[in-house]
Amino acid sequence: MRNSLFEVMNRQALIEQIQQKKSFLCIGLDVDITKIPTHLLAEEDPIFEFNKQLIDATHHLAVAYKPNTAFYEAYGIKGWKALEKTINYINENYPEIFTIADAKRGDIGNTSTMYAKAFFEDLNFDSVTVAPYMGSDSVEPFLAFENKTTILLALTSNKGGLDFQGLKTEHDELYKEVLKTAITWKNSENLMFVVGATKAEYFSTIRKIVPDHFLLVPGVGAQGGNLQDVCKYGLNKDCGLLINSSRGIIYAGKGEDFAIKAQKEAQKLQQEMAAILEVRSEK
Amino acid sequence: MRNSLFEVMNRQALIEQIQQKKSFLCIGLDVDITKIPTHLLAEEDPIFEFNKQLIDATHHLAVAYKPNTAFYEAYGIKGWKALEKTINYINENYPEIFTIADAKRGDIGNTSTMYAKAFFEDLNFDSVTVAPYMGSDSVEPFLAFENKTTILLALTSNKGGLDFQGLKTEHDELYKEVLKTAITWKNSENLMFVVGATKAEYFSTIRKIVPDHFLLVPGVGAQGGNLQDVCKYGLNKDCGLLINSSRGIIYAGKGEDFAIKAQKEAQKLQQEMAAILEVRSEK
Repeated sequence: MRNSLFEVMNRQALIEQIQQKKSFLCIGLDVDITKIPTHLLAEEDPIFEFNKQLIDATHHLAVAYKPNTAFYEAYGIKGWKALEKTINYINENYPEIFTIADAKRGDIGNTSTMYAKAFFEDLNFDSVTVAPYMGSDSVEPFLAFENKTTILLALTSNKGGLDFQGLKTEHDELYKEVLKTAITWKNSENLMFVVGATKAEYFSTIRKIVPDHFLLVPGVGAQGGNLQDVCKYGLNKDCGLLINSSRGIIYAGKGEDFAIKAQKEAQKLQQEMAAILEVRSEK
Repeated sequence: MRNSLFEVMNRQALIEQIQQKKSFLCIGLDVDITKIPTHLLAEEDPIFEFNKQLIDATHHLAVAYKPNTAFYEAYGIKGWKALEKTINYINENYPEIFTIADAKRGDIGNTSTMYAKAFFEDLNFDSVTVAPYMGSDSVEPFLAFENKTTILLALTSNKGGLDFQGLKTEHDELYKEVLKTAITWKNSENLMFVVGATKAEYFSTIRKIVPDHFLLVPGVGAQGGNLQDVCKYGLNKDCGLLINSSRGIIYAGKGEDFAIKAQKEAQKLQQEMAAILEVRSEK
């Protein structure tokens, strides 16, 4: 499935895509079958059909798609097939798109290698999200893959995010320790970090630790984050942000025109992003 | 697939199984297709065939099986099918066995609910391992399932385990904060904890925080942990330990007699466990 364009997919290709599309929008494909338009339920694979129409309608407005694997695993083998068809559809039709398996994996070394194979080789995603709790040797197996990106959880946007991430350690809060430590790991140039948008005030501190890395920012929209605030503190010279929106886009419509409605929501965000990038380039 | 015996599967059923089998052995089904006997490769589903023969040969010596999902996901849909067939085989033939999906999941609330459905409902595992980094609302959706157990990572046995778990926070090391906080969560009686066996000296401290919970202990055998040390500090009045061994058992033989060789290794551990339980009951 790997297409020649994918061979050069890396940070530079992502930056070029952002410049061309004037967008740093990532669309979260978190597909709950009870929330999709009912007319799709007659399809052989409703989840894939839903994704396909969404992707066709929004691929020029977004630079990345992020299926959350939980929503596919919940439907067992059928769900895994829908995930496989979705990633193949993107890779075949829109090879410029940066793909993220939002899987939040992480295990001891040999096991993390198996997860990396699952997402980087078998499914051919460009990146996967990984949890840091088990430390260096649980993350480095992912980082060892060339032209693949590992997106490490740092500060998450959920209510309980600060339960542990906000704990003050001897030097600093845990999420800062995670950032500081992770950038010392082998192949750390292949890292991005998840930073929740509900904590815009944290972005300036985070940028002092990781000025150059891309940050994947969930939580804009349904989770209450504000795009302007995030950009004010989070943008870097290469943009350096991927802003994810899921429910606000993919469930914008319930009828046969759901993809058009999703496109309109995506376009609103893209236009806001274009304006932010414009102002920034004038500085 | 759910059998009436499973409806009462809970802590008490596990304790009774431990008493009857004089064993607290969990066998890790971490199946790497490059390591299984070559004669199985001619089978339609070599991974399932491998598991089936192992389970048939060891079910009277072990109280739990723990497939690590990474090893199945790495083979895509075929792997997921092998996982599904394996859990169904155990549930149908050995319903007394406690089953663990070693998946190390964890995400924001609605997403964790999807993972819980995947493992507790679709696949019908008794328990799943979960990572704590995202805090309370990433774990509580798992805990909400009745008659299901959530096994939270506390202290892991890998080299990098202490990178973050060992960080000193304002009150205590992170892994202790995780234990102390987790037992305050809703339905925390449905928790077990992962505690690595390479750190036997930590067990006495951990037992002060969680005297009654079961601990799942990987790292005996291939990872270097010592069973006697773990039991000395980790046993409680209900046993309270599940000791996992994977590679040391499942790859004990390479030939057509691999299941017999695995049985012998499992039996060695079971006998050691029986002796430990015997000594303890005499006290």
